[in-house]
Amino acid sequence: MKGAFIMEINVLLFDGFEPLDVFGPTEVLGFAQNCTVHYFSMNGGIITTKEHLKVMTKSVKEIDSSQVLMVPGGIGTRTIVNDKVFIDQLADLMKACKFCLCVCTGTALMAKTGLLNGLNATTNKMAFDWVVSVNDKVNWNKSARWVIDGKYYTSSGVSAGTDMALGFIADQFGEEEARKIAGMVEYIWNDDPNNDPFAKE
Amino acid sequence: MKGAFIMEINVLLFDGFEPLDVFGPTEVLGFAQNCTVHYFSMNGGIITTKEHLKVMTKSVKEIDSSQVLMVPGGIGTRTIVNDKVFIDQLADLMKACKFCLCVCTGTALMAKTGLLNGLNATTNKMAFDWVVSVNDKVNWNKSARWVIDGKYYTSSGVSAGTDMALGFIADQFGEEEARKIAGMVEYIWNDDPNNDPFAKE
Repeated sequence: MKGAFIMEINVLLFDGFEPLDVFGPTEVLGFAQNCTVHYFSMNGGIITTKEHLKVMTKSVKEIDSSQVLMVPGGIGTRTIVNDKVFIDQLADLMKACKFCLCVCTGTALMAKTGLLNGLNATTNKMAFDWVVSVNDKVNWNKSARWVIDGKYYTSSGVSAGTDMALGFIADQFGEEEARKIAGMVEYIWNDDPNNDPFAKE
Repeated sequence: MKGAFIMEINVLLFDGFEPLDVFGPTEVLGFAQNCTVHYFSMNGGIITTKEHLKVMTKSVKEIDSSQVLMVPGGIGTRTIVNDKVFIDQLADLMKACKFCLCVCTGTALMAKTGLLNGLNATTNKMAFDWVVSVNDKVNWNKSARWVIDGKYYTSSGVSAGTDMALGFIADQFGEEEARKIAGMVEYIWNDDPNNDPFAKE
């Protein structure tokens, strides 16, 4: 049973998103008493990954943009980072949301809006130089499992998103809730945002 | 680029499957040089999770059943474990496959076929008693991140599937390949199948 107060996690998908960037975090968020997860894309319909996974989405026209926005990374970011319509719409969603959780190279898209300028953030460590090249006015952290700056949570690559999502649950609903959920999904939580085994030199 | 020899990972989905049971393993298998991932269900079409994720699938009529079968768990297992048509079809797929990777309570479905009788296996630790109640003729291991018996790989709950999938990659393509992929997705691999932090008392 969900609690009376519901926090909506609105995941913004695009062709070529990285599945585990999404489904690690949504797994733990979906078990949180007070969260529901929704899948959107800019135009709605079927979204496809590089491995031909096809996921149904609703159009962002239906989104409650005051809730929590989640932005994954993936190979598709290389294309849509140059899609002005997408980036402008993303900027509107980022401005409106209560919190924004961003995994892996999703940070390149967020950085492109300019809204992270002067803020602390991290990203995928293998794609680090590319993400920095998109916007070097962000204070990019080379060694962090995840970084929080105001309403923005950004994580390292792929699997780090799950650690960050549990951190978000702990921040919002208490550490006990986060640990309970980690146990339910038998997840070995790296609960220290500063413990980054994949830190860039 | 994929290598010349391709191993097909055929994931069998059903309504109420647990997303991370699938998308943790397929994330790492999808990065393996020699694997491609395909999503099936018994009748094809849209499959829905408890959190309203909708995934497109092909019908098992199109499956190359000689390849690798992957069976997730999830709340939906409680219903389909009693669906004789599903279990009979699953038995046929299990007999035909080269390897079978099973995550979490997917083992209840496999155990129901009788084909695991007398074999070693493990399952989700919170749902352990229920899975044992489905078929107590399996040698259920109360403490294992994953278990291998012949062509059958079975893992503990949800997140353990990712550790097992990396173990499968190591067994098939070498440990170096598994460690490379874990690094690519910044995954902290619990590489010891006997290290089970969620073992049942």
